[in-house]
Amino acid sequence: MTSHPDLYAIVPAGGAGTRLWPLSRAGAPKFLHDLTGSGRSLLQTTVDRLTPLGRGVVVVTGERHVEAVRAQLPGLAPRDLLAEPSPRDSTAAIGLAAAVLAERHGDPVVGSFAADQVIDAGPGFAEAVRQGVVAARAGHVVTIGIAATGPSTAFGYVRSGVSLGLPDAPDARVAAGFTEKPDAETAAEYLATGEYRWNAGIFLVRAQVLLGHLERLLPQLHTGLREIAAAWDTPRRADVLERVWPGLQRIAIDHAVAEPVAAEGGVAVVPGDFAWDDVGDFASLAGLLPAGADDVRVLGPRDAVLAVDAERPLVAASSGRLVAVLGLPDAVVVDTPDAVLVTTRDHAQGVKGVVDALRAAGREDLL
Amino acid sequence: MTSHPDLYAIVPAGGAGTRLWPLSRAGAPKFLHDLTGSGRSLLQTTVDRLTPLGRGVVVVTGERHVEAVRAQLPGLAPRDLLAEPSPRDSTAAIGLAAAVLAERHGDPVVGSFAADQVIDAGPGFAEAVRQGVVAARAGHVVTIGIAATGPSTAFGYVRSGVSLGLPDAPDARVAAGFTEKPDAETAAEYLATGEYRWNAGIFLVRAQVLLGHLERLLPQLHTGLREIAAAWDTPRRADVLERVWPGLQRIAIDHAVAEPVAAEGGVAVVPGDFAWDDVGDFASLAGLLPAGADDVRVLGPRDAVLAVDAERPLVAASSGRLVAVLGLPDAVVVDTPDAVLVTTRDHAQGVKGVVDALRAAGREDLL
Repeated sequence: MTSHPDLYAIVPAGGAGTRLWPLSRAGAPKFLHDLTGSGRSLLQTTVDRLTPLGRGVVVVTGERHVEAVRAQLPGLAPRDLLAEPSPRDSTAAIGLAAAVLAERHGDPVVGSFAADQVIDAGPGFAEAVRQGVVAARAGHVVTIGIAATGPSTAFGYVRSGVSLGLPDAPDARVAAGFTEKPDAETAAEYLATGEYRWNAGIFLVRAQVLLGHLERLLPQLHTGLREIAAAWDTPRRADVLERVWPGLQRIAIDHAVAEPVAAEGGVAVVPGDFAWDDVGDFASLAGLLPAGADDVRVLGPRDAVLAVDAERPLVAASSGRLVAVLGLPDAVVVDTPDAVLVTTRDHAQGVKGVVDALRAAGREDLL
Repeated sequence: MTSHPDLYAIVPAGGAGTRLWPLSRAGAPKFLHDLTGSGRSLLQTTVDRLTPLGRGVVVVTGERHVEAVRAQLPGLAPRDLLAEPSPRDSTAAIGLAAAVLAERHGDPVVGSFAADQVIDAGPGFAEAVRQGVVAARAGHVVTIGIAATGPSTAFGYVRSGVSLGLPDAPDARVAAGFTEKPDAETAAEYLATGEYRWNAGIFLVRAQVLLGHLERLLPQLHTGLREIAAAWDTPRRADVLERVWPGLQRIAIDHAVAEPVAAEGGVAVVPGDFAWDDVGDFASLAGLLPAGADDVRVLGPRDAVLAVDAERPLVAASSGRLVAVLGLPDAVVVDTPDAVLVTTRDHAQGVKGVVDALRAAGREDLL
């Protein structure tokens, strides 16, 4: 039943989802929410999607969210839920999971899949993972390059180079480099070349290959992670964590591994031809929800929303109250028990400014 | 201390204030709300304004609102609160009060002042009432014509004719006629003549003069009101009300008295040069609230509202939740415990459509 018996999925469950406030909160971040009306949270659908593909799934999250994650994933074995004492960015989170899996299983392929993305779990996703596993087994750090649906300025891009020539992964190519989020003109130029895809932050790599890169590039972080991993399944875990974890370097895995290794020619890219969305803001969320006959998009009970002369409103209704929208184009209304946000799709990226203003006003209770 | 010892003020406290939904509800209509942030409801400020001017104030309201009115007006004598068994429009409400006052006091001047208007209770108002009382004593039905601040299409107009020639009411003129709400072009033409003022529905008239007009124009209604009034301060009140009230004609006092009597030359108009607003919708409400330095207008606690890149928002915050508005010009957000309305000032008149849609959807619980 398992497609790849040597694959373990790592699911980093972190990230505040600030641009989805007031739905997403520090205490109940984005990945814990059902943002598509499917009845399952982003975390749950991520695990649902990965479970059939590999030998196991390991979730890494902050101690604050352990109980909520456990409640949402009753099928997850306790030892496959790794709790971080404090946030130390993605290299520490993914590196910890890889090091623990290396202790337990030797040298499996590990794949890192964020808990807060929406992905169509169809054949396209399975095929990308399949070719990615093949390329990872061959020693590459493999990223899945998402087929861009437009010249987005919200994502970084990965550029494809020459073919790796792997018979079982015919579409795998050398990653010729990563870019930061471009401006619109640059993004359009990227797409015109046919060589660029979105970097979704999905990586597949053999555990020992990843740890080898870390040993070479960030030896202190590597030593710390190895020490913690060796103690993880022993009574010494808490002591070692308390001593070592706070000193680990905070660095994103793109900067720590993907970019420097790509510069050496060690990163591969396999094409991901499946629907993907990072649900980065409410404009993105609106695109994921089905539109009713009246072009009203609702997250929550449909009968909680009344739209009159309103064009394309998005309403997230989670307070039990009625939300009436009258005559506003592209309105976004997010109704929660203690806060309501009113804006438009055009201002979706600006929601971070609201959160910043609340923090400045000392309203931590609402964050 | 009383300016006019023969004046009794009648305050009809009715009207749903539909365009102020969800603030104004069937169970807690507009007049019971503090809509200016003064700390007093429109009903309370109406009574506050009238009390120093006359001998007494009589409030007429529906049975459903008697308790709320009593709670808001602890100083009102029980016999000065008249409860209507069911809504029978303004002629029945005002006619009942006039007939009861005629039973009690003979032939006082009665003045009808709606409970849901905002009026600046300064010298301008006192002077208009003073001249109105003089003209009423002389036998006229007197309306106060409000100085228009612009060519509004939301109000009817009254046209001033020749002077009445009353030495103590030098500005009182014959009312040359009433108009329905005009279109914008017509309204501008009205104002250009200098002869037109807004009809605020404020009337002063001797009780017996009013009842005489009713006897002549609507004899059946007059007989019913007289019969009820004769029984009002007796043990027979409930019996007579139950028998007679349901058969009373439903007609607005403008149509029943003001217009036909004006056609006969029996209506006078005195100028009302004071700030007046009927708070007919949220655009009107926005104009009544003080603007903060950031041009945010808030009805409710100021710290319940966070506006970021928002131009001139109006927020009515009565649920205790935070309302965040991001980047919408002229947004109107009305937050109540069981419903939130999101619209713009331009759509203020359309709020009635939301209420109609709710009724059609069977959501009487929210009306």
